[in-house]
Amino acid sequence: MKIFAYGIRKDEEPSLKKWEQANPSVEVGFTEYTLTADSARLAEGSDGVVTLQTSPYTREALEVLKSLGIHYISIRNVGVDNFEFKDLNDLGFTLTNVPVYSPNAIAEHTVLLMGRLLRRVPEFDDKFDHGDFTWAPTIGKEYREQTVGVIGTGHIGRVVIKILQGFGCKVVAYDVYHNDDIEQQGLYVDSLEELYKQADIVTLHVPLFDSNKYMINDKAISQMKDGVYIINCARGELIDTDALIKGLDSGKVAGAGLDVLDDENSVFGKVWSSPDNIPNEKIRNLAHRLNVIITPHSAFYTETAIHNMITTSFDSNKALIEGLKPNNIVDTTK
Amino acid sequence: MKIFAYGIRKDEEPSLKKWEQANPSVEVGFTEYTLTADSARLAEGSDGVVTLQTSPYTREALEVLKSLGIHYISIRNVGVDNFEFKDLNDLGFTLTNVPVYSPNAIAEHTVLLMGRLLRRVPEFDDKFDHGDFTWAPTIGKEYREQTVGVIGTGHIGRVVIKILQGFGCKVVAYDVYHNDDIEQQGLYVDSLEELYKQADIVTLHVPLFDSNKYMINDKAISQMKDGVYIINCARGELIDTDALIKGLDSGKVAGAGLDVLDDENSVFGKVWSSPDNIPNEKIRNLAHRLNVIITPHSAFYTETAIHNMITTSFDSNKALIEGLKPNNIVDTTK
Repeated sequence: MKIFAYGIRKDEEPSLKKWEQANPSVEVGFTEYTLTADSARLAEGSDGVVTLQTSPYTREALEVLKSLGIHYISIRNVGVDNFEFKDLNDLGFTLTNVPVYSPNAIAEHTVLLMGRLLRRVPEFDDKFDHGDFTWAPTIGKEYREQTVGVIGTGHIGRVVIKILQGFGCKVVAYDVYHNDDIEQQGLYVDSLEELYKQADIVTLHVPLFDSNKYMINDKAISQMKDGVYIINCARGELIDTDALIKGLDSGKVAGAGLDVLDDENSVFGKVWSSPDNIPNEKIRNLAHRLNVIITPHSAFYTETAIHNMITTSFDSNKALIEGLKPNNIVDTTK
Repeated sequence: MKIFAYGIRKDEEPSLKKWEQANPSVEVGFTEYTLTADSARLAEGSDGVVTLQTSPYTREALEVLKSLGIHYISIRNVGVDNFEFKDLNDLGFTLTNVPVYSPNAIAEHTVLLMGRLLRRVPEFDDKFDHGDFTWAPTIGKEYREQTVGVIGTGHIGRVVIKILQGFGCKVVAYDVYHNDDIEQQGLYVDSLEELYKQADIVTLHVPLFDSNKYMINDKAISQMKDGVYIINCARGELIDTDALIKGLDSGKVAGAGLDVLDDENSVFGKVWSSPDNIPNEKIRNLAHRLNVIITPHSAFYTETAIHNMITTSFDSNKALIEGLKPNNIVDTTK
């Protein structure tokens, strides 16, 4: 059995080596290139393909794989939006993803963003860079004194809640689907409006749907407390950036921690010579504020997550080749 | 009754106002000046004095207070090392301090320093400043995967433990005095050597004694795991800076989060034109490393802590004036 992997980065190689050692019956080939019509030929002789990329998978690339007799594709991430399901179905591919690789990676990053805002770390860093070793007047707030509104109580939101409770925060939660444990703890409020009313910090942990695009808009922000902090480690399009900027300008919003941004693909994953040269004016605006922390969609990026992404994708691809039906097969008929 | 306060900063004024409103029978006067032989005269007509400063209290200043008929001094902090107890005793002063103002302020800062190191925040910040919005290869580690060695299980160390447990960390603890709760949880190890052997992160929460000065020296570091992180939000003199620098140079120590430093008074509380101009070569060395985070003894500095420092010191001073014996009277006979 042979599996060929695309887009393998240096930081993935240690986990890949481990998987190979644990699966001596499988021959593993890999390249740093993403999967294109050209690079698809590298998979010749393989039974399945493992891949990860931020650009769309072309029908041409998939046609080459099919011509090589390959029917199984396992992606190392969650999101399947880079595939046209029609192409996969037409060409007879079975696709697996990695639905959960490390809720903790994202949850911990989320809570860290809150703390960096509460303790005014960017302002302290700025003072430090200017040789200013005073503490006053850069006074901080404590987690323990905060009421945090957690929107979305899936895998990630629930870990966020558990961590915040260790800090002694008060938590209020909102989700259309109620989790039993969170329900039993009595954390749910009945509406987003009620959550906005109570929360000193609002944090987003929901998937993106058409229905919740720009859910954090002028109206939502107007329902929040004065001096609210907003954290987004979910999807950029959940926040209307114009509304956020307006909220920051007026002081209504005290700060924001953003691992994702609307139109982030125009900026993230690239190297500009300075934040002044970001091609998106709104992101540039946010990037210059000392009460806004932007991280480049890196919340997920931990050794544990990478290990799980490699292990689960290769395990799934192997299972498919062996004729098994792993429970992370993506339903491409929808 | 009148109380006069010294060294009042802008950020203390809101809490001071609240205390005045809650205690209408007490007249409060204050100045931003510290307590000196000159400024002592400002307390004329007062029954007690509330003060906070980082410089020594002179006998001359205390003599002026005595000449004004004042016998009660309440400091807004813990440390009484700026007083000569002989002076206080000769001149008949009763002194109170604020033994605990917010363990959470320091514990939260401690845990935040850990996360900033684990997620390589200074490196991400440096990339950001250079317009680099990529995440690879700046891969992070998760709290959840760490074993944290907590040295000292007093008020602060215990809050650190509780927060870390919320993150799902494994905790090992060491203290000469065993706390019942921590004991029941089975967290104590029998020796520092055992703690160093197990801990991915070592964090200090002990007072400074002659016996533990430079406890983190070459020998202690050699007993730690390769790639250990060291956090110090306790007292600078607990760490031999030369040993720490050696450990960082060799890679034995992966990073350090330092809110306190040996000889910090030569640097902290002051504004240099840049970190290059710090007058202490060792601190300058540390300040330039992306795997070292220095904060200017600001772990305590939260709104909650300041509120408690004001409230407790004024409450104590009032109690002394009323002839009561608050339980935070400092024993100056030792």
